[in-house]
Amino acid sequence: MTVENHFTLLGRDGMARVGALATAHGVVRTPAFMPVGTQGAMKGVHWRDVRETGTDIVLGNTYHLMLRPGAERIAALGGLQSFTGWNGPMLTDSGGFQVMSLAQLRKVSEQGVMFQSHIDGARIELTPERAVEVQILLGSDIAMQLDECVRLPAELQDIARAMELSLRWAERCRRAFERAAPGRMLFGIVQGGDVPDLRRTSARELVGIGFHGYAVGGLAVGEPQAVMLAMIEEAAPLLPQDRPRYLMGVGTPDDIVQAVGRGIDMFDCVMPTRNGRHGVAFTRFGTVNLRNARHADDPRPLDDESPCAAARSTSRAYLHHLIKSGEALGAMLLSEINIAYYQALMSGLRSAIAAGTFAAFAAQLREDWSRGDIAPR
Amino acid sequence: MTVENHFTLLGRDGMARVGALATAHGVVRTPAFMPVGTQGAMKGVHWRDVRETGTDIVLGNTYHLMLRPGAERIAALGGLQSFTGWNGPMLTDSGGFQVMSLAQLRKVSEQGVMFQSHIDGARIELTPERAVEVQILLGSDIAMQLDECVRLPAELQDIARAMELSLRWAERCRRAFERAAPGRMLFGIVQGGDVPDLRRTSARELVGIGFHGYAVGGLAVGEPQAVMLAMIEEAAPLLPQDRPRYLMGVGTPDDIVQAVGRGIDMFDCVMPTRNGRHGVAFTRFGTVNLRNARHADDPRPLDDESPCAAARSTSRAYLHHLIKSGEALGAMLLSEINIAYYQALMSGLRSAIAAGTFAAFAAQLREDWSRGDIAPR
Repeated sequence: MTVENHFTLLGRDGMARVGALATAHGVVRTPAFMPVGTQGAMKGVHWRDVRETGTDIVLGNTYHLMLRPGAERIAALGGLQSFTGWNGPMLTDSGGFQVMSLAQLRKVSEQGVMFQSHIDGARIELTPERAVEVQILLGSDIAMQLDECVRLPAELQDIARAMELSLRWAERCRRAFERAAPGRMLFGIVQGGDVPDLRRTSARELVGIGFHGYAVGGLAVGEPQAVMLAMIEEAAPLLPQDRPRYLMGVGTPDDIVQAVGRGIDMFDCVMPTRNGRHGVAFTRFGTVNLRNARHADDPRPLDDESPCAAARSTSRAYLHHLIKSGEALGAMLLSEINIAYYQALMSGLRSAIAAGTFAAFAAQLREDWSRGDIAPR
Repeated sequence: MTVENHFTLLGRDGMARVGALATAHGVVRTPAFMPVGTQGAMKGVHWRDVRETGTDIVLGNTYHLMLRPGAERIAALGGLQSFTGWNGPMLTDSGGFQVMSLAQLRKVSEQGVMFQSHIDGARIELTPERAVEVQILLGSDIAMQLDECVRLPAELQDIARAMELSLRWAERCRRAFERAAPGRMLFGIVQGGDVPDLRRTSARELVGIGFHGYAVGGLAVGEPQAVMLAMIEEAAPLLPQDRPRYLMGVGTPDDIVQAVGRGIDMFDCVMPTRNGRHGVAFTRFGTVNLRNARHADDPRPLDDESPCAAARSTSRAYLHHLIKSGEALGAMLLSEINIAYYQALMSGLRSAIAAGTFAAFAAQLREDWSRGDIAPR
């Protein structure tokens, strides 16, 4: 099968790529970081402020949205972009990963996954066809195939079985997606755990089926970073140069830089918002824990050179006070500051790749991070 | 004693007044509504968005701030306006009211109030002198005298005793305030419960001491609205025309309109943010409970004619979803929408008073509220 292409590769620097992905709701600059709006909202951040951080595309979680408020309801309300008011590009996952981690009494069969809703206990079947249908109803710009993701470490035979099942589901998703509106995309997902052979098989077979883009899944599930990077090195060279590549659920700023250097174009992670809610900021100086008493009397901002106004103008003392007091504004400010940090990182990566200075840029980032936070006053 | 005047009465319509109060951090247009930023933050609303709602001045709670992060610390960090980044006018209460409602083992004597912090159990004494000192340290534009507020209903002798104690504390606060920076203001507080005689005595004595403005306190503590309005009618005519009048802790939109019609210039209340967090919106159509299932499929905004963009453009279905899902964004949007509703109400009141159409404006508001929400679809 042939699949129309929406991705433009604008430049390369070693394995690192800079590009643009055209969606029905706008262009996504790659390498791209997608903040996660689990239940149709970015936790603690207004959509207008998400856009201000330099975010082009966000991720919505199919599992949550199909349970509440429901895919058919969102479709009747004009789709996820209109429902939320974000009105920009959105990628949705297939729901499979959260079924595994959140739902009760789940049972995987050839047909799909049976599970009980963690909200009201309702029995629900998620098949490859239904996963695609739900994502079409949500109006996703980029839908993901249903896959089975094995938690590592795992037995070889379990990893192989899940990878093969995921390939058969990929085929079924691809067929089901033929009903999607023009301009919408479906990504296949490379599985195979930490087994190089299985990763390569998965990548080759998926390319044979043909997708608008390719994800590398089943990583950042507890394995060392080196294993994750090794698996990217197996898969990426087998994926077509003219299609976007998405590393699911990753990660730290360093994970992202390393993966970009190995040819990955897209990322998603809850880290900026989740860490923000817990009082941890991502900065040029590495992570900074605002709960620490050293900040209580410190009038200095997190980073007086940050492109993010909140990071540049809010004092550490105030952030410390807000977090210690449990004031919502603390989580709100740090979530915004962290997303802005990630987006500034992506912007820097894009510029460096375009300029052919990726290696030097990455080295400088690592040097800055390892130097650590500014000295206490 | 004479006290310099910062208030300009710009117009009157019956008893209703429109004016301007000049503070060290900017001009406050009256009648003014002060949203409450209890712990140095507006719950769920960025300061930049507080300003966008048309807010001129906010209230900070001395009790919370003296316990955490501490008045001396805030002073060292440049004062509350700079510490929070709000940088606009701020009024602080004296701490007395929250000592009564939140602290443990409180004991009122002639000297002041002894209490235990609800955070760490520390024994703290709040005297009139310390209440003023703390507010000077916080950098308040408007400080409030320490008073004793009696919960209604109460015995006549208890109300009289607390009112008389509050007068003696008013005198001590006035003396202590002589150390304040130029341009800062101190308000006295009329007490006297629901007893007209005591309210009049309190007002007359306070005017004799001399303050930059006068508050009516000890109301909206459980008594019927008619009692509250009757007490305003006792006190207001005895207060100087050229000083601002502030009704503490009030209230609903209707309370505010009624009190403005009786000569009150300033208000504060947690209702817009607290109700917002509980899914209740204030609108032109009265209060709207977004938890109600009737909104689940309703693509219409709360009010398509609202001056607040969030009220005009966010669908009821999305707000319902956010509140039902416990997403922070629901509380954030409704808090902002509610503050904006209150500020639009104040703006409308100011214009109507200036135009001499207060009575008609108030009647129209009541008619709109009583008509109720738009019909379900």
